[in-house]
Amino acid sequence: MTYKYPSAAELGALAASDFVAAVGPVYEKSPWIAERAHAKAAPFDSLTAIDDALWSVVSTASEDEQLALLREHPDLAGKAALAGDLTAESTDEQQRAGLSALSPTEMAEFTALNGAYTTKFGFPFILAVRNASKRIILGSFRRRVGNARGVEMAECLAQVRKIAWMRLRLLAPPAPTGKLTCHVLDTAHGCPAAGLPITLRYLGGTASASAEPVLIGHFMTNSDGRLDGPALSGSAFEEGVYEWVFAVGEYFAVRGTTASGTPFLDQVPLRFGIDNAEKHYHVPLLCSPWAYSTYRGS
Amino acid sequence: MTYKYPSAAELGALAASDFVAAVGPVYEKSPWIAERAHAKAAPFDSLTAIDDALWSVVSTASEDEQLALLREHPDLAGKAALAGDLTAESTDEQQRAGLSALSPTEMAEFTALNGAYTTKFGFPFILAVRNASKRIILGSFRRRVGNARGVEMAECLAQVRKIAWMRLRLLAPPAPTGKLTCHVLDTAHGCPAAGLPITLRYLGGTASASAEPVLIGHFMTNSDGRLDGPALSGSAFEEGVYEWVFAVGEYFAVRGTTASGTPFLDQVPLRFGIDNAEKHYHVPLLCSPWAYSTYRGS
Amino acid sequence: MTYKYPSAAELGALAASDFVAAVGPVYEKSPWIAERAHAKAAPFDSLTAIDDALWSVVSTASEDEQLALLREHPDLAGKAALAGDLTAESTDEQQRAGLSALSPTEMAEFTALNGAYTTKFGFPFILAVRNASKRIILGSFRRRVGNARGVEMAECLAQVRKIAWMRLRLLAPPAPTGKLTCHVLDTAHGCPAAGLPITLRYLGGTASASAEPVLIGHFMTNSDGRLDGPALSGSAFEEGVYEWVFAVGEYFAVRGTTASGTPFLDQVPLRFGIDNAEKHYHVPLLCSPWAYSTYRGS
Amino acid sequence: MTYKYPSAAELGALAASDFVAAVGPVYEKSPWIAERAHAKAAPFDSLTAIDDALWSVVSTASEDEQLALLREHPDLAGKAALAGDLTAESTDEQQRAGLSALSPTEMAEFTALNGAYTTKFGFPFILAVRNASKRIILGSFRRRVGNARGVEMAECLAQVRKIAWMRLRLLAPPAPTGKLTCHVLDTAHGCPAAGLPITLRYLGGTASASAEPVLIGHFMTNSDGRLDGPALSGSAFEEGVYEWVFAVGEYFAVRGTTASGTPFLDQVPLRFGIDNAEKHYHVPLLCSPWAYSTYRGS
Repeated sequence: MTYKYPSAAELGALAASDFVAAVGPVYEKSPWIAERAHAKAAPFDSLTAIDDALWSVVSTASEDEQLALLREHPDLAGKAALAGDLTAESTDEQQRAGLSALSPTEMAEFTALNGAYTTKFGFPFILAVRNASKRIILGSFRRRVGNARGVEMAECLAQVRKIAWMRLRLLAPPAPTGKLTCHVLDTAHGCPAAGLPITLRYLGGTASASAEPVLIGHFMTNSDGRLDGPALSGSAFEEGVYEWVFAVGEYFAVRGTTASGTPFLDQVPLRFGIDNAEKHYHVPLLCSPWAYSTYRGS
Repeated sequence: MTYKYPSAAELGALAASDFVAAVGPVYEKSPWIAERAHAKAAPFDSLTAIDDALWSVVSTASEDEQLALLREHPDLAGKAALAGDLTAESTDEQQRAGLSALSPTEMAEFTALNGAYTTKFGFPFILAVRNASKRIILGSFRRRVGNARGVEMAECLAQVRKIAWMRLRLLAPPAPTGKLTCHVLDTAHGCPAAGLPITLRYLGGTASASAEPVLIGHFMTNSDGRLDGPALSGSAFEEGVYEWVFAVGEYFAVRGTTASGTPFLDQVPLRFGIDNAEKHYHVPLLCSPWAYSTYRGS
Repeated sequence: MTYKYPSAAELGALAASDFVAAVGPVYEKSPWIAERAHAKAAPFDSLTAIDDALWSVVSTASEDEQLALLREHPDLAGKAALAGDLTAESTDEQQRAGLSALSPTEMAEFTALNGAYTTKFGFPFILAVRNASKRIILGSFRRRVGNARGVEMAECLAQVRKIAWMRLRLLAPPAPTGKLTCHVLDTAHGCPAAGLPITLRYLGGTASASAEPVLIGHFMTNSDGRLDGPALSGSAFEEGVYEWVFAVGEYFAVRGTTASGTPFLDQVPLRFGIDNAEKHYHVPLLCSPWAYSTYRGS
Repeated sequence: MTYKYPSAAELGALAASDFVAAVGPVYEKSPWIAERAHAKAAPFDSLTAIDDALWSVVSTASEDEQLALLREHPDLAGKAALAGDLTAESTDEQQRAGLSALSPTEMAEFTALNGAYTTKFGFPFILAVRNASKRIILGSFRRRVGNARGVEMAECLAQVRKIAWMRLRLLAPPAPTGKLTCHVLDTAHGCPAAGLPITLRYLGGTASASAEPVLIGHFMTNSDGRLDGPALSGSAFEEGVYEWVFAVGEYFAVRGTTASGTPFLDQVPLRFGIDNAEKHYHVPLLCSPWAYSTYRGS
């Protein structure tokens, strides 16, 4: 992936007018958000810091300003899209979600839902569609049109922030502060799972990526059940979808658990998404030969 | 897969001499086990019942008989294998585990370990190798040669039972009593996860199978978070390795959890092995947008 | 506990005027809610059905009606409380939460927060305080005053529903449709935990109850790891706080796990609250000698 | 508790004859174990180091020596106990387990089991009974008498080690290397649970202790969901049974989860035993408003 700016820090250090030109579009047709954020808190050393500053402006803006922001957004699969009248960012997002290729029935439902929603609430339905399927989008649309206005206003603002984050991270690589770590506990014996082989693969930028998985590396847990360092860190750590595969069957076989011939757990995959590569993701495994769990740790 | 006997029940209903001819070889060169089991408990209506009866004979046999059984087993990667002197079953098992293609260094270690083990314990090292890798076998061998004799005798008997089970299930299809069920709980909201799409695939007869996954079906959880019936049952339920994939990201997106653009959990795979297709395997998922667990349930 | 009505069904079968007299006050000074619910859906066979019908009226009311409902609520620890001007229900709730005995500092903070909140949003801060401590109330107040108006309006309506539910269940005993069930899985061995002793106690109507625990019964899991029937059901199943204690140490000791002299897990307590005794609560335990988990199941 | 030796290090630094006099009795009438351990590895800086050295001698002794060790043990509730002929250590252990107060029926079963077991295996049934109930002891006895001899020999040796450890830790306080730590993860939001109040109590030296719980302290999780240091460490960290209570209900209430009036999870107790106070026990909580899990971590 190529970026317009070589680092998050250089993007965050731009002078006001350049900053607004670069970052302004992440909030749809609302450059005032980038202007205020820059005035209040520049420079920024990470994408996360820029995102936080922008969101701080939005969440403390007046209700009228928030409504104005929402109203700058186009309908999903609406007239503006048909007419080719969207911003470049919106066009790309709607195409990726399959909204540029709807059947007549789907188009009719979108039109009806857009109408009902805007009439009820006074602002358009907003959903961060970059990684969503038509099915998720329609399901969400049908549910949300029944919500109370206050709930929907809060939901739309949260979606607008998600859209802004996804646009922001296309501008520059993340600051090299993130990392991916692991830990394996053997819950059958109450100890770290030492000597357990792990493979890590990158499955692509989104969950639905059809690209071939990329092998990142083979690892072995140490005596504390951890890797000797992060599996990924700094500029090698990118957003996207990853998968650990833990050789749980081998671990328990060597440690003397007489499993069946086809063990219940053998190669255990954990698939997880990294949304902000400037953060620490700790993704551990707790396992016995018959049960396991995982979670986003810290 | 083709079987010599059309059903577990027909195998289990054979007259004594036929039963011993068919089932005798599952315990290496020890037909007395099948003889006694038949005399005591025939007929049998399932592979599980045959396995239980055979094991009951072994576990209540005298210590001398148990030792004799162990001593009928060949060394792993030993002289008998080199000389082509193994039973058909042992040859197949050792080849599948890669023991017919050892490097000189590996061969030397096997020879040394075989010698040390037999000298120390008076019986050969036994491991059910059908699905094991050289790495698991060597790791297990190095560890177990340091055990106490009583522990090793018990371990070898347990391995012999595993070998017997894996041989037994090649003789006839399992009785149609098994099934695979599922349940999904939403631990973020404390309720069944209704309307969650699930895909089930068969990955092959062993964990290391390189064959293409076979799609078994697409499912959707009902209002209790369950499938409307077993995902597999009766003769359609075979031993081997399976994988559920749960559309957790879609479930939470539609239900109003504002996840990040690349959700931490989206497509969640659970990969598990079925060793005895005559049993009920309940393989549930407990999940929030940030954590999940699974276990062999009942 | 004594109730004014002998059963949820009798309460739910009252004629319109009696129903509004009885149920009207569960939504503060807003009898129109009970009127509309009765007109639309009476009779009701359970407290849950009444609660659902009332909430359906509230959630589909106009924004002006919803605001009017919110504005009927008194300030927490406000002037009306000092003047003895609250409804009987509000007085009782605020006293239970300790709001009738505030220090001058606490009173000053409440007054300031009440003022800031009402000025910002145009309706009073609402929190279902029956079981809350001053600490929870103040923490929640400080956080929520910073929210957006739409979020707060939705939050207040949700709190109003909670208050209504807590008032409603004081009127009549729950319909005898609820039950409490259990299941114990042994995750070290991948099987139901059979023969595990369990004790159930009732800890009182609220988490902070200082009353002595009441022994409800001793149970033993069956071969499927379950109790032979519900631990509690029908009229014996009351809202409040319960505690299972599982004899996990004994279970694993008898099953041959050589634990340490003081096992890591021995008597495992699970403490949980029942808010709606008309529902099914399935509260299972998944455990190894070194790890366990529980969840609200179904 | 008063100890004969002021520290594990002083006990571990004794000259050979004093060491054997002090430590010899931890393995029943078998001072040769302490002699060899001292000769091979003294001095020792912890009880754990002494235990490891003693066990290394036992596990590498000849089968005849191991059998001799087992045969030094008295029958449980046997003739030697009736005649007052036990070592002081055995008398104390059998009394604590209630074996000095058996009914005639219980005594008859013990006598029968002792006879059957010794006849079958050639050594007495051994179980570390210090913290066990009659029920656990009988359940274990009935099961184990059916085992194979090798399995029982290994089990008895493991029990002998447990007995030795429990005796050893009566001689001197543990080395101050242990500690107790905690971590709370919010699995509903995928983040550390910051600002969650925790209480720690000491419930006594054994699980069945009837003494009043002793409050050790109140804690609050920091921004990483951890305590700022160990909850207990060094000489303050004693073996025995402890209980965390986590204010999960308060945590989620303040963070904006609209729970029900009686939350499903409010005060969450985790009760756990510390068997070796020289080790690090990490006892975390992973929780949502509807589910939680814990495990012995590292």
